[in-house]
Amino acid sequence: LAEKKVLIVYAHQSAGSFSAAAKEAAVEVLKSKDCSVKVSDLYAMKFKATATAEDITGEVKNSEHFRYAEETKLAWDEGRLSADITEEQRKLQEADLVIFQFPMYWFTVPAILKGWFDRVLTLGFAFTKEKRYSNGIFKKTKALLSFTTGSQETMFSPTGINGDMNVTLWPLQNGILHYCGFQVLAPQIFWAPADAAPEGRSAMLAAWNTRLQGLLDENGTWLLIAGEEPPMLKEVQDTLRLLSPPLEGLSAVKT
Amino acid sequence: LAEKKVLIVYAHQSAGSFSAAAKEAAVEVLKSKDCSVKVSDLYAMKFKATATAEDITGEVKNSEHFRYAEETKLAWDEGRLSADITEEQRKLQEADLVIFQFPMYWFTVPAILKGWFDRVLTLGFAFTKEKRYSNGIFKKTKALLSFTTGSQETMFSPTGINGDMNVTLWPLQNGILHYCGFQVLAPQIFWAPADAAPEGRSAMLAAWNTRLQGLLDENGTWLLIAGEEPPMLKEVQDTLRLLSPPLEGLSAVKT
Repeated sequence: LAEKKVLIVYAHQSAGSFSAAAKEAAVEVLKSKDCSVKVSDLYAMKFKATATAEDITGEVKNSEHFRYAEETKLAWDEGRLSADITEEQRKLQEADLVIFQFPMYWFTVPAILKGWFDRVLTLGFAFTKEKRYSNGIFKKTKALLSFTTGSQETMFSPTGINGDMNVTLWPLQNGILHYCGFQVLAPQIFWAPADAAPEGRSAMLAAWNTRLQGLLDENGTWLLIAGEEPPMLKEVQDTLRLLSPPLEGLSAVKT
Repeated sequence: LAEKKVLIVYAHQSAGSFSAAAKEAAVEVLKSKDCSVKVSDLYAMKFKATATAEDITGEVKNSEHFRYAEETKLAWDEGRLSADITEEQRKLQEADLVIFQFPMYWFTVPAILKGWFDRVLTLGFAFTKEKRYSNGIFKKTKALLSFTTGSQETMFSPTGINGDMNVTLWPLQNGILHYCGFQVLAPQIFWAPADAAPEGRSAMLAAWNTRLQGLLDENGTWLLIAGEEPPMLKEVQDTLRLLSPPLEGLSAVKT
């Protein structure tokens, strides 16, 4: 059995955090399973979050009208992406499993991790118009969101004020991970550990430890829909139309 | 009639971009309506995207276990937030209308704009456990997402491979803007201007110009649900359960 390679992209400022403990647990258990584990500690690396022309070494094609996706695609083709991006791309390419460990900020990833997605998942390297979703470039790689929340689980229930967590995660799990082809494993959600008693936090970490034992054998849920693109059903549209600003408003102003 | 104050938070690297043109159109039309318009040009400002202890001047309370939300809440109470954050908070507090103008990156805002949300919407300043959603601190302020996409509109239709745009925008419009109380206006979506012919782009800008004429009189769709928190309906949950990794997987590992 070949050694499995795991990449943990970790985004918390403090080594004393619950996120750090969750990251450490993953490193420990997965190493004990003979995995080679690499950690990208984004804050410690002072990872650059913003997508700028500095991500390209040498000349940009059109500085008058700089277009990030096109310029970085070209730079990737020619091996002119900045070293920090290239290094992350190398780690990602080698990985069989990628774990994103972060505290949820504003219903998604912290900016430093969004910057990792914006800068590392370069057009050409991570996706093309032809290669995405079920035909995505990373379809052999498993990915998992592991994160802490500030809110209690009940607030993310279908009738909770935050709405269903599946809706909250949709742009990340479908829009980023599945788009690049990743086999998305069920998210590991640590509900409000900061508000939990020490025993509560220990129990959450124990459950994570248990899950980690079999994590490499888990299958991405996307596979269950057999290579089909997931269409949003009409119910979703109708429901969210009631809750969020209608796109009809738009066609009105566009015509 | 008192002069209206507008803040445009703008996130594009290039003055030659369609996003820049859309921002300029807003500045021009709204000034012609006797609004005072301020623009936060995030890339030009080299706006810091990452949430770190440097956002606090003076000592942090617990450097061993640095918790960003708690530390910045305290710093805000004591007027010890970094100058760049304080300046953005001042602009936001004065504004009657906030327009976020950006190119959609990975189904949400670019990291530099996510950093603006992470750093400027401080606990205490922008929300508290008591003051959020329909009781949110910014309930007198209107907010609008105005953005370009790389994908065509059909890809974001309910049956499109990206899924419904309302679902994609949910974490931004409900999770950030409505959470802070903002009256969320219908999003202004410029569909794939880069792939459009010059006439197509002109038509999009003309439509935006037309909408801008009456923008200050538009009402947030959230108001239509009469101060009620928007619960996610069961259909949404059931639908997305089919499409995204099930949370059941989780309870299984948590117990």
